[in-house]
Amino acid sequence: MSFAEATSVARLSDSTYAGEIQSGWDIFGVSNGGYVMAIAARAMAEATAGRDLVSISGHFTNPGSPGPITIELTEVKVGRAISTLRAEVIKDDKILLAATGSFADADREINPVEWVQGAPPELPPIDQCVRAVPNPDAPLPPPFMGKVAVALHPDDVTAFDGGTGVAQMRGWFRLLEDEQPDALATVVAADAFPPAVFNANLPLQWTPTLDLTVHVRDPRPRSWMRCVFNTRFVSGGMLEEDSEIWDEDGKLVAQSRQLALVPR
Amino acid sequence: MSFAEATSVARLSDSTYAGEIQSGWDIFGVSNGGYVMAIAARAMAEATAGRDLVSISGHFTNPGSPGPITIELTEVKVGRAISTLRAEVIKDDKILLAATGSFADADREINPVEWVQGAPPELPPIDQCVRAVPNPDAPLPPPFMGKVAVALHPDDVTAFDGGTGVAQMRGWFRLLEDEQPDALATVVAADAFPPAVFNANLPLQWTPTLDLTVHVRDPRPRSWMRCVFNTRFVSGGMLEEDSEIWDEDGKLVAQSRQLALVPR
Repeated sequence: MSFAEATSVARLSDSTYAGEIQSGWDIFGVSNGGYVMAIAARAMAEATAGRDLVSISGHFTNPGSPGPITIELTEVKVGRAISTLRAEVIKDDKILLAATGSFADADREINPVEWVQGAPPELPPIDQCVRAVPNPDAPLPPPFMGKVAVALHPDDVTAFDGGTGVAQMRGWFRLLEDEQPDALATVVAADAFPPAVFNANLPLQWTPTLDLTVHVRDPRPRSWMRCVFNTRFVSGGMLEEDSEIWDEDGKLVAQSRQLALVPR
Repeated sequence: MSFAEATSVARLSDSTYAGEIQSGWDIFGVSNGGYVMAIAARAMAEATAGRDLVSISGHFTNPGSPGPITIELTEVKVGRAISTLRAEVIKDDKILLAATGSFADADREINPVEWVQGAPPELPPIDQCVRAVPNPDAPLPPPFMGKVAVALHPDDVTAFDGGTGVAQMRGWFRLLEDEQPDALATVVAADAFPPAVFNANLPLQWTPTLDLTVHVRDPRPRSWMRCVFNTRFVSGGMLEEDSEIWDEDGKLVAQSRQLALVPR
């Protein structure tokens, strides 16, 4: 099943779309948050008649699991260049995700100023990275890793064996079978990697995402993306994880930030 | 008028609060976005019976101006430790801001792990920084600067005279008359400084905020806060601005990120 199919939605009315969380997109039995957000973004994008995702931010309130979902949309503003909508992803009468998204007209005039203080992460060629594949006999790597292609920088894979001491995770991301990615693929990429904080060698378990924001700079990325995730601050019972997602040509495709609560 | 008064709200029902955007909190005639978000957060916090703001993210859809507003709340989830709500700030039948906030029980168990890769910005003492005060004869510094205390690092003030070439803005922030700040004060702090990108010396005008997220690590900051704002990427007609807000003792109080659209 393609990513487009796994995130597909059916319009029931202007404000209600039906979708389905597919099985296998999970980690410790909980559906991947980026995947759930991508379904919400799909419904929002269709309601805007195909405008491009620029920004989506959402708070996760209940764990997702496979099965039918409803996406309830509320129009906030339809502007000349930008449309903003709310989406709630509902399963079994519980809200899994409350998101807000802004979508831009593809033909809008874009300011051509480019000023980039940064560079894509240095990564070995994909075949020298460590492809994350599900382990059928253990919870990690999770089933989700069978739904996308993630190839980790070999220096960062020690996460699972004590950690590098630097809360960073780098690697390649692609949809399976080289499916052409769209802006929504970056939403999944932004939540597809093992937590960067695993490399900090701290006494932390898996950290549930409270909120996730993805800012899309290029809504039409190509194939493999170079990704880097960093956590700098674990404090107050929380940690942030920031990502940069670049294309193969060294162009910034998206940025993300999530806040995770660190369980006691 | 104190910050608490300027952001005060009156409960009309479980889902509706009345507030008022006070005059003087504006920049080029548009109410400061962090201030408008703080009013929304005030209503949400009151609806949670005083839980602490942990995360608020919102999309700005219409410019604010002084006058009465309504804050429409929708409960997303009331959990044992975390409550999540939606808020829409409505003025003259237009939605100014669509926000989602998560609030935590102050007595929840907090994981004590602290791991901080970073430090507060180096700042001269406050009296050696440049206090931003409104210019009654020009649009900048704006009237808003009379409502909070912002003292800029002298090295960064060249923003208004060509720029340092580094898209960074550092300085001190405090409420007026040393009013005790709460978590909502960090929401204003996160949007209170001149854009960091002004120092990049690019052909850019004022950049309207599309969305803003504030993550609060310490809901009870003390007096002056050390703030640093950075922009790293201007591309695709957008730029991000990240902030770190620290207290005087070197503790991280909050982080923020906003996405601004760069007008053509």
